[in-house]
Amino acid sequence: MINHPLFAVEPWCLRATDLDLAVLAQTESVFALGNGHIGWRGNLDEGEPHGLPGSYLNGVYELRPLPYAEAGYGYPESGQTMINVTNGKLIRLLVDDEAFDVRYGEVRAHERCLDFRAGLLHRTVDWVSPAGRAVRVSSSRLVSFVQRSVAAVCYEVEPLDGPLRVVVQSELVANEQLPAAEGDPRVAAVLETPLVEREDAAKGARAGLVHTTRQSGLCVAAVMDHVVDGPDDVEVQAESFPHLGRVTVTATLGPGERLRLVKLVAYDWSGSRSVPAVRDQADAALAAARRTGWDGLVAGQRSYLESFWDRADVEVEGDPEIQQAVRFSLFHVLQAGARAEGRAIAAKGLTGPGYDGHCFWDTESFVLPVLTYVAPESVAHSLRWRHSTLPAATERAGRLGLEGAAFPWRTIHGEECSGYWPAGTAAFHVNADIADAVVRYLDATGDGAFERGVGVELLVQTARLWASLGYHDSRGRFRIDGVTGPDEYSAVADNNVYTNLMAQQNLRAAAESASRHPDRARELGTDEEEIARWRAAAEAMVLPYDDELEVHPQADGFTDHETWDFAATTADRYPLLLHFPYFDLYRRQVVKQADLVLALHRRGDAFSAEQKARDFAYYERLTVRDSSLSACTQAVVAAELGHLGLAGDYLAEAALMDLEDLEHNTRDGLHMAALAGSWIALVEGLAVMRDRGGSLSFAPRLPETLTRLAFKISVRGRLIAVEVTAAAATYTLVKGEPMGLTHHGQQVRVSLSHPRTVAIPAASPVLGTPAQPPGREPARRPSRSPIEPDTTTGQEHHGHPSGG
Amino acid sequence: MINHPLFAVEPWCLRATDLDLAVLAQTESVFALGNGHIGWRGNLDEGEPHGLPGSYLNGVYELRPLPYAEAGYGYPESGQTMINVTNGKLIRLLVDDEAFDVRYGEVRAHERCLDFRAGLLHRTVDWVSPAGRAVRVSSSRLVSFVQRSVAAVCYEVEPLDGPLRVVVQSELVANEQLPAAEGDPRVAAVLETPLVEREDAAKGARAGLVHTTRQSGLCVAAVMDHVVDGPDDVEVQAESFPHLGRVTVTATLGPGERLRLVKLVAYDWSGSRSVPAVRDQADAALAAARRTGWDGLVAGQRSYLESFWDRADVEVEGDPEIQQAVRFSLFHVLQAGARAEGRAIAAKGLTGPGYDGHCFWDTESFVLPVLTYVAPESVAHSLRWRHSTLPAATERAGRLGLEGAAFPWRTIHGEECSGYWPAGTAAFHVNADIADAVVRYLDATGDGAFERGVGVELLVQTARLWASLGYHDSRGRFRIDGVTGPDEYSAVADNNVYTNLMAQQNLRAAAESASRHPDRARELGTDEEEIARWRAAAEAMVLPYDDELEVHPQADGFTDHETWDFAATTADRYPLLLHFPYFDLYRRQVVKQADLVLALHRRGDAFSAEQKARDFAYYERLTVRDSSLSACTQAVVAAELGHLGLAGDYLAEAALMDLEDLEHNTRDGLHMAALAGSWIALVEGLAVMRDRGGSLSFAPRLPETLTRLAFKISVRGRLIAVEVTAAAATYTLVKGEPMGLTHHGQQVRVSLSHPRTVAIPAASPVLGTPAQPPGREPARRPSRSPIEPDTTTGQEHHGHPSGG
Repeated sequence: MINHPLFAVEPWCLRATDLDLAVLAQTESVFALGNGHIGWRGNLDEGEPHGLPGSYLNGVYELRPLPYAEAGYGYPESGQTMINVTNGKLIRLLVDDEAFDVRYGEVRAHERCLDFRAGLLHRTVDWVSPAGRAVRVSSSRLVSFVQRSVAAVCYEVEPLDGPLRVVVQSELVANEQLPAAEGDPRVAAVLETPLVEREDAAKGARAGLVHTTRQSGLCVAAVMDHVVDGPDDVEVQAESFPHLGRVTVTATLGPGERLRLVKLVAYDWSGSRSVPAVRDQADAALAAARRTGWDGLVAGQRSYLESFWDRADVEVEGDPEIQQAVRFSLFHVLQAGARAEGRAIAAKGLTGPGYDGHCFWDTESFVLPVLTYVAPESVAHSLRWRHSTLPAATERAGRLGLEGAAFPWRTIHGEECSGYWPAGTAAFHVNADIADAVVRYLDATGDGAFERGVGVELLVQTARLWASLGYHDSRGRFRIDGVTGPDEYSAVADNNVYTNLMAQQNLRAAAESASRHPDRARELGTDEEEIARWRAAAEAMVLPYDDELEVHPQADGFTDHETWDFAATTADRYPLLLHFPYFDLYRRQVVKQADLVLALHRRGDAFSAEQKARDFAYYERLTVRDSSLSACTQAVVAAELGHLGLAGDYLAEAALMDLEDLEHNTRDGLHMAALAGSWIALVEGLAVMRDRGGSLSFAPRLPETLTRLAFKISVRGRLIAVEVTAAAATYTLVKGEPMGLTHHGQQVRVSLSHPRTVAIPAASPVLGTPAQPPGREPARRPSRSPIEPDTTTGQEHHGHPSGG
Repeated sequence: MINHPLFAVEPWCLRATDLDLAVLAQTESVFALGNGHIGWRGNLDEGEPHGLPGSYLNGVYELRPLPYAEAGYGYPESGQTMINVTNGKLIRLLVDDEAFDVRYGEVRAHERCLDFRAGLLHRTVDWVSPAGRAVRVSSSRLVSFVQRSVAAVCYEVEPLDGPLRVVVQSELVANEQLPAAEGDPRVAAVLETPLVEREDAAKGARAGLVHTTRQSGLCVAAVMDHVVDGPDDVEVQAESFPHLGRVTVTATLGPGERLRLVKLVAYDWSGSRSVPAVRDQADAALAAARRTGWDGLVAGQRSYLESFWDRADVEVEGDPEIQQAVRFSLFHVLQAGARAEGRAIAAKGLTGPGYDGHCFWDTESFVLPVLTYVAPESVAHSLRWRHSTLPAATERAGRLGLEGAAFPWRTIHGEECSGYWPAGTAAFHVNADIADAVVRYLDATGDGAFERGVGVELLVQTARLWASLGYHDSRGRFRIDGVTGPDEYSAVADNNVYTNLMAQQNLRAAAESASRHPDRARELGTDEEEIARWRAAAEAMVLPYDDELEVHPQADGFTDHETWDFAATTADRYPLLLHFPYFDLYRRQVVKQADLVLALHRRGDAFSAEQKARDFAYYERLTVRDSSLSACTQAVVAAELGHLGLAGDYLAEAALMDLEDLEHNTRDGLHMAALAGSWIALVEGLAVMRDRGGSLSFAPRLPETLTRLAFKISVRGRLIAVEVTAAAATYTLVKGEPMGLTHHGQQVRVSLSHPRTVAIPAASPVLGTPAQPPGREPARRPSRSPIEPDTTTGQEHHGHPSGG
């Protein structure tokens, strides 16, 4: 955790008024812009200093060999790594004779601000060069939500104390030099200069570069144009080289004069189309951007976001940090998914190179549950991407001797890229998680076209996987042996409860969907026999139970294992996986991230309230949260069980994961699932929203730290606003047909202009709050101070005590 | 399996009268010579053609990086690979203008013969050059058992049909070009030219090369001298280059004349001594060899082997192939272990580069049990080597968070070199196997000095490992979770029966040994508290049992798993690990190699006869023997349970493993454990020899295919000869004090000159022979034909029907 306040606390912005180079990479991640198609890290305009330069296009990767000390059948031979594509952000500045560089001269003021409603990253710097020339540089940057292939920068320079000669170089840079990566030198070599020059051109204020990747054979075009506004003597010149496009603007600025440069950048890429076709498409996008212009792009951005926040905003009163964090989270989740159309939503979105830019189960299990209720159209896109990878998934299943589809544990393009099978291939639950996302989306939207088009097939192919992976034992029970659940501190165990329950749901959902669409089912080769087998497997699914302890073992035999010696494990030994071998973790009772507890959340219908309480208490004392995918789930179950303070603490951990760098790797990109988790912790946690099979329910209660929670969800064509205070909840139908819902078990019917306010019943007494492993308790949310910080203009700073 | 008869069936030789280049590499392995210190593959004198050139020095390895697609804590970063050192075998011949090369011209006769009593590899070739010149080349080669650093070749050339100009080039070649290896190109690069030139010299008929290895920093010296005998015009010239030492002999041979060249080669190497010191030691060994001379070396070799066979010979009547195979086996086991002094006995001895030249549990569990009774002095050496690696093993245990010693799964120098932890690090049973070998050696020899010197410490440090690896659960049972047993088609399971029973024995043996040597125990930091903990853990050791099936699951939950679909598995899908992913193998009931059945053998005291029968029958139908470490164990348990035909079949499989290339990889070296297994199958199998705690017992019975079995064992200072026929067994004390033994439960006392012949009781009726997986039955030994083949000079050939 970083121990100084990086960001001002404001409800609609993330602002940094310092430039601390020690945490530059982290701020580049949190200030990243993206639209799901293009991602630009929040690198400084002038390129240097940098933590980690990053420009990404969703789906652009290079292949690299996956080496093994000892090979094995079915091991993937090559991996896919998201590459840093042509950098279109770069704008260098020469002030008289000196390069504008914040490491030299004097920075009198430096502010970066990410505006969640404008969708812009603003920056202003007042800088005095080593030779004493003072200048103000202002930039605003956007990656357009409206024009998917377009990003833009509005860059302004003005002298602060006298005339200046300025030279502005606006560039496209391919094969940017990156900080040396650790690890396999061969891999580094492959990724060092991934782009092979195909074309470069320059004309007027325009320049463009076209490259192809060496192994994966993708064609990438980046083009830029400029609108320059300044004194009469401004000169503009464009030039291009194999890996550099450059437009140079020179001017002399007198007092009160400024130079303004609008840089429009367009990208295109393809794995199949020709170099000229890709180049032309990028040029066309650029032409469209020119026509829209900077002001038009800014207006489109604001309008897109207005519409988003109208459907998606979450208001949190009583804890301004959480208010800010949840909007920051929603903004980044939107950026990751908004225009991913036909591509994956990666674990770190397009904010950094972490996890090689791969998409994991995080997407379906954490990101899509949020988008389903705030931006359902993006969920359909994301699941259509999964569907488009079915050929790879069915091929993989065949290679593994299984039927149906075996979706990859980690991938960009659809092929399995995991190089450690016990925590990759064996984690088959990803298939049930995909099915779960399909079911949730269908439940929430009733999108029949989607179901017919791709939903049935996703459900059928994943159900087939389970039917072939499990088996009926001599007692007729359906077992799923030798798989890995969500918890990565266990692996390759029999009858993982989470996996079995999710597979059960998957099998049932496939049977129902196939029955709803018999013609599609027939096309998929499904018959009544097969559907009956799915139902039978689901009915006979084994759920291990420890009669002695009266808890569910995470998997067969788990509760027989020795408990991790938490007392002997000092704080510096976390995360455990960096300090202990897998064999030691696997054979003990220690949980990296919610696994059985995730089953309590996602398949709450399979447990009684008493059982949930016993299981939650048992696993709380074993769960160390060495993963960012845990806190939100623990928040949800804690809230459902009435442990509101604990739920609030976990909510804060999820929400502040990146703002406080709790996992120490925000530099490599944001944790999309944890960001999404802040919404999950609030809505499925504190408000206990549940929505399955067409029945929507809430059981909201607020922890002491919060005075009000308000959010909106889109469900079955309606937009519903929910407002929760300590005493009551108000349900408002903002759009759509009247509908019923449940509040703390009580039926409530809402219709347009008839909001319903319902009292929150007194909480049943709750037994003591479950304990966590010593030192692994979540940071306690501070009690509110008597004087509330100013939530509109306040300059309060984050400064939580470290979370153990 | 190779489907043509490669070798003549003779009792004391292995002879090949064909030169089939398709199986050249395999024959290079079976014709390999070695003494445990030097290994020379049976490469043709002239170097080419070759399957796989190989000259090895025990302990000479290079380090190579172990790459991982996904790294993990505790993964070994570098591996050790045995390298091909300077080739001292090479003798090239120019006949008039043409190189002697069997691929060109005409081979009129070609014979190679490995003589088990002489310890020589003979070769004679009658060859007609493409130009029509006929020549006879004869060579005899030895690697001296008496002079550890010395190997020698006696090479003769004679014209068959007229005068010849001949040039003989006798060479030392470093960094020999090897056939391209598959896999990681970086690794190949490291191993391609592992030797860095330090010195080269030539004088008279001598030449020498000194090199160091690049990464591991070992210094290797190879020197040679020659005694040349031929017509008067013979000229000899020596020269040296960085990677080549060469002595060139030229002569003109008239009819009836011959050129005879004795080549003496000496090697030395060191990881710590200087280049001059290593060079001088090799020169000194060469001087000693020169003094001994060829005839002296040959005589020493024969005398050494006479003494060996006097103690170790096994006679098998009724099946001449088995007779030959068991002597072949014993000869190679002796070659692997005889002079390993202070070094490991590798899984393939020094016969090939397979398994990187690593030593596994094979040594203690299969090779040492044989050597204990036929060459016990070599067992002490081998275990002293293990002891010498204790610093690495205790360091490894510490890194894994364990106490005591964690010996490596595979190594040359002592450090863990396994790159796949579920089948490496997790296979902790290697530690109990080492302890088992210590106990066996102590039982069989009463070597008190060994126990004090290294035995106690090996037992104590391994016991400490188990005490820290296992734990007492809430019911007070001692569990060992998350480990891998011998069967490599399962991994990382709880309470593997074999592991738990062997650990139990290890804990008890450590307690007893520490009590016998309280002063040593104190030096090792052991006190009564610790000893009591070992005993308590041993007493409380969990043994899983399946009450429903009435069998022992190999590990917790094993019998709940789905049985492998053997019916659907065609013959071409074996070995399974090359055609199915680990996850699929691990989650099913399918056994690569004896695991529970090995427990029935090694810890037979822990099972009733009925239980053994049930367990054996259960595991027979699951065991596919995709490992060479299985057949002998199955032979032992089958024999003990009265399935004599089956035992005979498994015996044959172990004995013919390399002669028939049953695993298809004899080219990479011989399977020492399987070779040792042929003795185990005969002595611990058919003769049911058991020897623990000072009580020696037999319960011999022969299968129908055999008429007589005779063997000798050294035990507690005695040499005992055992002879078994269908009707009776005769026990003869050849040397030592009178002693008692048990024959089919009957007490028998033997003393010098009082052999005891005892009838073999009628066998109890045995229920049906257990079935194996379809297609995985061992090849049935053919019934004896009415006419016995001539066992002394016969030219019968191996030609078994393929074993499924």
